[in-house]
Amino acid sequence: MAEVHATRRARLRERCAAAGQGAALITLPANVRYLTGCAPPGAALLVGPGPQDLLVHLRPPPDDPRQDPHPDDLEATVLPSPDGDAAVAAADLARERHADGLAVEEHHLTVARHRALRSVTSGIPLTDLASAVEQLRLVKDEHEIAALRIAAEIADQALGELLESILVGRTERHLALELERRLVDHGADGPAFPTSVGTGPHSGTARHVPSDRRVEEGDFLTVRLGATYRGYRCEVGRTFVIGTAPAAWQIELYEQVFDAQRAAREALAPGVACRDVDRASREPLTAAGHAEGLAPWSGHGVGLEIDEDPQLSPAAMGKLDACVPVTVEPGVHLPGRGGVRIDDTLVVRPLADGGPELLTITTKELLAL
Amino acid sequence: MAEVHATRRARLRERCAAAGQGAALITLPANVRYLTGCAPPGAALLVGPGPQDLLVHLRPPPDDPRQDPHPDDLEATVLPSPDGDAAVAAADLARERHADGLAVEEHHLTVARHRALRSVTSGIPLTDLASAVEQLRLVKDEHEIAALRIAAEIADQALGELLESILVGRTERHLALELERRLVDHGADGPAFPTSVGTGPHSGTARHVPSDRRVEEGDFLTVRLGATYRGYRCEVGRTFVIGTAPAAWQIELYEQVFDAQRAAREALAPGVACRDVDRASREPLTAAGHAEGLAPWSGHGVGLEIDEDPQLSPAAMGKLDACVPVTVEPGVHLPGRGGVRIDDTLVVRPLADGGPELLTITTKELLAL
Repeated sequence: MAEVHATRRARLRERCAAAGQGAALITLPANVRYLTGCAPPGAALLVGPGPQDLLVHLRPPPDDPRQDPHPDDLEATVLPSPDGDAAVAAADLARERHADGLAVEEHHLTVARHRALRSVTSGIPLTDLASAVEQLRLVKDEHEIAALRIAAEIADQALGELLESILVGRTERHLALELERRLVDHGADGPAFPTSVGTGPHSGTARHVPSDRRVEEGDFLTVRLGATYRGYRCEVGRTFVIGTAPAAWQIELYEQVFDAQRAAREALAPGVACRDVDRASREPLTAAGHAEGLAPWSGHGVGLEIDEDPQLSPAAMGKLDACVPVTVEPGVHLPGRGGVRIDDTLVVRPLADGGPELLTITTKELLAL
Repeated sequence: MAEVHATRRARLRERCAAAGQGAALITLPANVRYLTGCAPPGAALLVGPGPQDLLVHLRPPPDDPRQDPHPDDLEATVLPSPDGDAAVAAADLARERHADGLAVEEHHLTVARHRALRSVTSGIPLTDLASAVEQLRLVKDEHEIAALRIAAEIADQALGELLESILVGRTERHLALELERRLVDHGADGPAFPTSVGTGPHSGTARHVPSDRRVEEGDFLTVRLGATYRGYRCEVGRTFVIGTAPAAWQIELYEQVFDAQRAAREALAPGVACRDVDRASREPLTAAGHAEGLAPWSGHGVGLEIDEDPQLSPAAMGKLDACVPVTVEPGVHLPGRGGVRIDDTLVVRPLADGGPELLTITTKELLAL
């Protein structure tokens, strides 16, 4: 695995050289993890100048069996005091190593930290690395996809077990906690994000903080959860009906969202514009009269962060590539009544290979529970 | 309650006026919450110029019964698109309102966001608000202390219930999850921070990510957890022995940490230097030969964030005031063997009022479980 990280750092080094940037200072935790395999809180990674990269830790690496061991080919140093700033120490070392420029993550560093960096790098131009590492992270390798596959399996298992239990009378918060416990039971590092459970009028929203409302007969129940496995995050969302006989409006709405979500899934292919995948679900739901209730985006990339590029939205630029994992999660929320949201994680694959690989395989049939 | 927030904003406005800053732009979530009672993700608060403050939301406020309703006396506006930056919108409005200066939180805003602010405020000087709001937050009012009291009670209850259950054979991760479930059962918004459970050689560390190691007879078991209640966060930590007869080294180490922690608790009083409270526990543990195993700080403030000013450490400047809540949490970790950590949250009170108010009342006697 160490070669993987060294290779990624080499690609970053090439990018920086091509952009005339002498060295790069990485502070965003997911980016540090992508390039080193570990994610110590507060750590900073110096890539370049020269071939020997350096990871500056705030404190001795914690005892965490869920992270890769520190790679042998990466120099590491620990700050004498955890009150320091690993980024400032790394910038100082860049200066000692005669870097003729340092690219930093201006979308992550605060103004105060940037000022501290400038005070130790005086004379060395500081430029913006921008989203160079995020762009490297877009297309996943097969190890990353394997981790996502397992994360999806764990989420599916947790959801499946919940569906076998009694739901009526339980609060949204308890169901969310139960799901998170089961994620860990099945081997997740932890939840990928705070689990969302919404019942009755709370169902179908893009974000719902679980409340003390109890599940009742006749409710739509929307569940959205995700697992983190070896740092990789996947999500799944489903909507169920509680009780034996869904109402006519529920069946109709469910079919509309199901069909829209399927259309968007089927639109996924290498070379397709992100906005076109979004349109594949947005258009039919708008035509059905639900424009008001739609979220501004209908999916997003996943990986070391639960919300990554690319974004699937009307304004999205860019096209999909093979081996890019995305969510497809349109939904409709009718204020006061509730609604439907169906959320899958898929990997874009060439059509010749069978089209998009669905990771989250819990049935999307409307279940009455 | 609305007057509380309006009063706090008025105090901030006075501070800014005294510092020659025309208006203040608050983005750190705990600071937004302190000044408005709500904490919408991505929101930005404009205090001044003039008497009418403004809260800019990224999206319509979520349906969250655990937050105060939006105060009537605070103007609010929602961005047309949640892809925008509420801080940029707020800065633009400051310009429209003829602010002659804008103080921003340079320890929170990224370089990229600050650049976006500058592009809309061209001409208006942007200065650093620094930790002005954090300083207002230091001394808690009785409502805040009441919330902390309840948060502490919830943490004590969760811990107490766990102690009545079977521990041997259970993993650290399961115990941590169990504690977090019980926090919510007892009315917490949620955990104050990721619960830490360490058994055997993992016990006594300042930070331990719960692993799959199972509790065994003869282990030290260290538990550290906290509850959030109405946004206020409290913590408690205890160390137990598993089985009927602690070893002699365990009894000796426990007494050393207990005595050191008690000395630090008893040192708390208005006017006392923070570094002196730290020294009260650090000195005896150093004298007992444990200097290597000590954390660089032995306590910290709590409130809307679990880790606030003041810090109790050898380098800390500043003195304590009445109504400042702090943790007192020295501990010793012996690599390969484990150790002891005892953590309380207390409120500094005048000696005439009985000295520090202990919020976390779980017994500190060494229990064999």
